[in-house]
Amino acid sequence: MNDTFDFRLKATDGTARLGEVITPRGTIRTPAFMPVGTAATVKGMYPNQVRELGADIVLGNTYHLMLRPTAERIAELGGLHAFMRWPHPILTDSGGFQVMSLAALRKLTEKGVTFRSHIDGTKYEMTPERSVEIQGLLGSDIQMQLDECVRLPASTDEIARALRLSLRWAERSKRAFEAQPKGRALFGIVQGGDDHGLREESARGLTDIGFQGYSIGGLAVGEPQAVMLSMIETVAPILPSDRPRYLMGVGTPDDMIEAIARGVDMFDCVMPTRAGRHALAFTRFGKINLKNARHADDPRPLDEESDCPAARDYSRAYLHHLIRCDEMLGSMLLTWVNLAYYQSLMQGIRAAIAEGRFEAHRAQVGEGWARGDIPARG
Amino acid sequence: MNDTFDFRLKATDGTARLGEVITPRGTIRTPAFMPVGTAATVKGMYPNQVRELGADIVLGNTYHLMLRPTAERIAELGGLHAFMRWPHPILTDSGGFQVMSLAALRKLTEKGVTFRSHIDGTKYEMTPERSVEIQGLLGSDIQMQLDECVRLPASTDEIARALRLSLRWAERSKRAFEAQPKGRALFGIVQGGDDHGLREESARGLTDIGFQGYSIGGLAVGEPQAVMLSMIETVAPILPSDRPRYLMGVGTPDDMIEAIARGVDMFDCVMPTRAGRHALAFTRFGKINLKNARHADDPRPLDEESDCPAARDYSRAYLHHLIRCDEMLGSMLLTWVNLAYYQSLMQGIRAAIAEGRFEAHRAQVGEGWARGDIPARG
Repeated sequence: MNDTFDFRLKATDGTARLGEVITPRGTIRTPAFMPVGTAATVKGMYPNQVRELGADIVLGNTYHLMLRPTAERIAELGGLHAFMRWPHPILTDSGGFQVMSLAALRKLTEKGVTFRSHIDGTKYEMTPERSVEIQGLLGSDIQMQLDECVRLPASTDEIARALRLSLRWAERSKRAFEAQPKGRALFGIVQGGDDHGLREESARGLTDIGFQGYSIGGLAVGEPQAVMLSMIETVAPILPSDRPRYLMGVGTPDDMIEAIARGVDMFDCVMPTRAGRHALAFTRFGKINLKNARHADDPRPLDEESDCPAARDYSRAYLHHLIRCDEMLGSMLLTWVNLAYYQSLMQGIRAAIAEGRFEAHRAQVGEGWARGDIPARG
Repeated sequence: MNDTFDFRLKATDGTARLGEVITPRGTIRTPAFMPVGTAATVKGMYPNQVRELGADIVLGNTYHLMLRPTAERIAELGGLHAFMRWPHPILTDSGGFQVMSLAALRKLTEKGVTFRSHIDGTKYEMTPERSVEIQGLLGSDIQMQLDECVRLPASTDEIARALRLSLRWAERSKRAFEAQPKGRALFGIVQGGDDHGLREESARGLTDIGFQGYSIGGLAVGEPQAVMLSMIETVAPILPSDRPRYLMGVGTPDDMIEAIARGVDMFDCVMPTRAGRHALAFTRFGKINLKNARHADDPRPLDEESDCPAARDYSRAYLHHLIRCDEMLGSMLLTWVNLAYYQSLMQGIRAAIAEGRFEAHRAQVGEGWARGDIPARG
């Protein structure tokens, strides 16, 4: 195991980038989709299945893990990788986003945020230093600074206040992170809401501090896609080209391909796993709602050309039946289908960038989605 | 694919039997445990996983499948084997037991039973002929006659009335079954409650009619184990030795080994799958409740010597965490552990009978259970 974290830009095609994030635990091929393993499990999947789909990295949620089973317990048990049987790279968020969206009685100060657990009401304090400490106890390979993500719409003053606080927290996070073993990375997070000037201020501020990678936060939170893309267009050129760029919590296949076209390297989203638990399949031909009665008699698989057994081998009629009966296997199969599609989408995009045909590939992928699913018989 | 159903008694050791049930879809090594796939899925397991554990056959529930997705729909889709991607033998119950335990507004007559679906209130009629027809539409390899299983305690008169009705239904089932393709089997079901004389009457009556196999029903429904075993001791010697004997809905590992000692060949039970969804693991050292806080810091697997990855590779601390967080993977892993244990128990028993050391093996297995699990550290 070497002890260096690095990013290698291997090719560009227009603004789209092909790269490799090098970590002591393995290489992450970018553009990369990172399945979300909130509570130390990618819901409904065995860890080796996630790996076999081509995932180089998964995400863990600091907020959930600090509450249960606690970072200290995971550290005693040998770290998050051993705990969840995922020996490959893991990225963790700072916990801040979920503190603000899930926890009760939040109180934000310059120092940090106090809150009560949404599970049992226990009081916690989260500071930039504590967030980095927790992520270190988990053994996370790619860690996030604590930031404040304001809900949109918000006033310019409010967005500015939050991004400036986040910049001060970024410096504190970086100092706290210095205690950690070599080979791990800390990413700064660009905030600034839907304001170009503030996004620019945030990106420049973080670049001045200097991080091993840069996240773009506070997007895909309800704003139109055009706003999100426009913010990426503002931010990406400011960020150093020799560092990975991670668009947090994104997204739909279309969001991702558009962001890749604008220079983003990494993504995470609960969409494929959550949709899989809600009867929704992602395929080359768009989304398919298996709850729909039209599938009840359909012997065809979701995609006979897929490499994923769940998409290739099981009939729509069977998937529909499992969902109607609320059977675990329905969620297991559709989660598998969706994560397989997300990984194959990234694989196809990486190949296209490598061969200088990203634009043609993007058009072709879009045609598949636009075509839509073949209607059922009858 | 040959078109014969047969039973080969390969060895006996005391009253314990080693055999093979031969069907066109494959051979079932007996003693056999049949995982329950109620609604065309063994809950929380991919079908190939069930197979890889060593299961030669699974069970489907006629009552559930006739309501959703309906037998006619499954037949149109190519039968239950194709539908659930289990190309190996399938046994189905008659539906009668679940009609009496789950359905609403049941009305029993000589002709059959009318009831309303517990799902949407739709009215159905179930007769011996309809049950066999449904099982035929499903394509079941081993089918059950419709019977009436009375709840204990019940009066002798009531038990006698039900078993005699079941005998008349047995004849009607056999006639209806004649329309089906060769190679499938219909089993008669011994009833008679906890009354030796009535059990004998039932077993003799069924043997006179003549079936390809014999089920023992109406046991393990709350009576003491000694009563169940005593009923098996009454019934087994009456049943033809060249036909398989199936103890329905049983049971615990101990119930099964005791029944095998008394000449039973086949078992089914929801216990390993249901327990797996309720934090309970079956191991060589008895049952382990993973909900218990003592597992929270325990890095040991459930059984490091197990061949099952779920039992061998994941820490108790992780399993405990998954259960506390109500994560699907917790149910998936414990179901896997339990079905693996049940299959390995059968495998060990078959090897012991083959080598004429069943009694010694039974004692050894019992010692493991009695020893109990090793306590956690601290």
